[in-house]
Amino acid sequence: MTRPTEDELIARYLAPLAVAAGADGLSDDAAALPEGAGELVVTKDMAIAGVHFFPDDPPAMIAAKALRTNLSDLAAKGAAPAGFLLGLGLPQDWTEDFLAAFCEGLAADIAAYACPLYGGDTVKVPGPLTISITAFGRARRWVRRRGAQAGDVVCVTGTIGDGALGLAVRAAERDPAGAARWIGGLTAIDREHLRARYLLPQPRTALAEAVAAHASAAMDVSDGLAGDLAKLLKVSGVGAHVEADSVPLSDAARSALALDPALLRAAFTGGDDYEILLTCRPDAFAPLEAAADAAGVFFTRIGEVAADPGLVIRDGQGNTLDLGPGRFEHF
Amino acid sequence: MTRPTEDELIARYLAPLAVAAGADGLSDDAAALPEGAGELVVTKDMAIAGVHFFPDDPPAMIAAKALRTNLSDLAAKGAAPAGFLLGLGLPQDWTEDFLAAFCEGLAADIAAYACPLYGGDTVKVPGPLTISITAFGRARRWVRRRGAQAGDVVCVTGTIGDGALGLAVRAAERDPAGAARWIGGLTAIDREHLRARYLLPQPRTALAEAVAAHASAAMDVSDGLAGDLAKLLKVSGVGAHVEADSVPLSDAARSALALDPALLRAAFTGGDDYEILLTCRPDAFAPLEAAADAAGVFFTRIGEVAADPGLVIRDGQGNTLDLGPGRFEHF
Repeated sequence: MTRPTEDELIARYLAPLAVAAGADGLSDDAAALPEGAGELVVTKDMAIAGVHFFPDDPPAMIAAKALRTNLSDLAAKGAAPAGFLLGLGLPQDWTEDFLAAFCEGLAADIAAYACPLYGGDTVKVPGPLTISITAFGRARRWVRRRGAQAGDVVCVTGTIGDGALGLAVRAAERDPAGAARWIGGLTAIDREHLRARYLLPQPRTALAEAVAAHASAAMDVSDGLAGDLAKLLKVSGVGAHVEADSVPLSDAARSALALDPALLRAAFTGGDDYEILLTCRPDAFAPLEAAADAAGVFFTRIGEVAADPGLVIRDGQGNTLDLGPGRFEHF
Repeated sequence: MTRPTEDELIARYLAPLAVAAGADGLSDDAAALPEGAGELVVTKDMAIAGVHFFPDDPPAMIAAKALRTNLSDLAAKGAAPAGFLLGLGLPQDWTEDFLAAFCEGLAADIAAYACPLYGGDTVKVPGPLTISITAFGRARRWVRRRGAQAGDVVCVTGTIGDGALGLAVRAAERDPAGAARWIGGLTAIDREHLRARYLLPQPRTALAEAVAAHASAAMDVSDGLAGDLAKLLKVSGVGAHVEADSVPLSDAARSALALDPALLRAAFTGGDDYEILLTCRPDAFAPLEAAADAAGVFFTRIGEVAADPGLVIRDGQGNTLDLGPGRFEHF
């Protein structure tokens, strides 16, 4: 098997992705980012084969998800994408086919999110495929986790729990013998919906401007709604009450929960939602909802911020839900 | 062995490094970079145990070198450090002692180079220790590789070849039986000099401003002088003549070459120099040299840019040096 050298690889696959002037066609060790309006927001997420994705996930999806998890962080901070750097650690057995498909996935998202490649580093690793993306965005105002205040409402975009359930669907596909019973009880369409939600997050970039304008605090839900909200509240020095029944679920997730009600815990504490969790003054709900409507994204009020610390989640009967210890940790 | 959780690890070791306001004590998924004068230059270098450093290198040196290789890129682009993001992939057998020493090394360089931590990502990897740093800098003018013109002089900072020879010294220390004879012929002081040059690059940050003011093209020498200069010339569409005898060598490197003249190839094509290679108009040499003098750094004219493509390196007898194929590739 002949494989391209590092220089050939960059010229053939990566340089075509570097469409911005400041990237100079990747002919340099560094790049200049263009000036822009607003604050420059930076974020960095790593993704490791066998930890954050399955080594046999489709290469285009691996690439797209690695970028999108970063764009999701940006959106939750009120920032529109401006570009990214790609650190790529290729395992010993990498193939050119893999790389071609990986870059095709990146190219599609670079176009879709107007987020060009500015540079990076490509190395070989005596270990699993390693992706390290740094993304840049511009925000009218950088929205922090810190900032929730008593009396704010707690809201989320989209639906919660699909990513965690989709991970189970994807795992069952790879190991049918070990599949949980509820997966077999779903329709093929529900399974596909959940699988796609796991493989391909939908960064809420369209809402970034409204988030910057109206949120008091925000973050993306990547490690589970319950744990992530608890973090936001803690750093803001407040607490919250959340109604479990108001947490938005997809039809597919509802079907899964009907088959196995214990999945509620996975839905509320699992990772990979990549929705925006935010708090805002009550009168800011309407403009945020209008922006979400315009973008075709659900926007749901799920609770209220309280002065007392702690997160309390209540079910329809008013009982406190015990989600058990821990949260989803890739670490 | 009890080890800290991800949250504890961040709070105990990484948050104290995030001294900039925009990092918000690492309580967030993202950070806001402060506005600054000049162009924002970004660069990213990955470092993998067993590829870019020895797993048993001192942890503080591993950390410092991972940061400094990025600062070296910035300096060569004319940029002063402004901050960085750290992607840290910890292997299965990481220890708290390792992490404490690693962060001590980072803390020292954050202070020395006024380059605070702004954020990043910490994950576990089923593979070797993986470091992915993105560094930000500000340059009055982003100096590219592209830009060398016929008639320019070719110059380098510091001394060339110490890194490659230092790598051999460090490898001999780990495997005395396999050590080349010349290593045993060096004095202990020469060995220590070369070893330190390999473990601890000296980014020429003090020269960044002068580079931005005077260089026509520049890059840092990380993959060997000959190969890196060839790249710079190629992207600039020119060639150059270099006098081998004028390439600056340390006393330690001279001693090594006296013991084994064949080491010249390693010195000219080996990696890990982390010096600035630049071209400038002949009348810009003096102000650059003055800036280097003020910073206590050698600054040497080694050749001249020619209109014809290709790099020709001549020895003292006027014969063209054949450095053989290839250049040092971490890839």
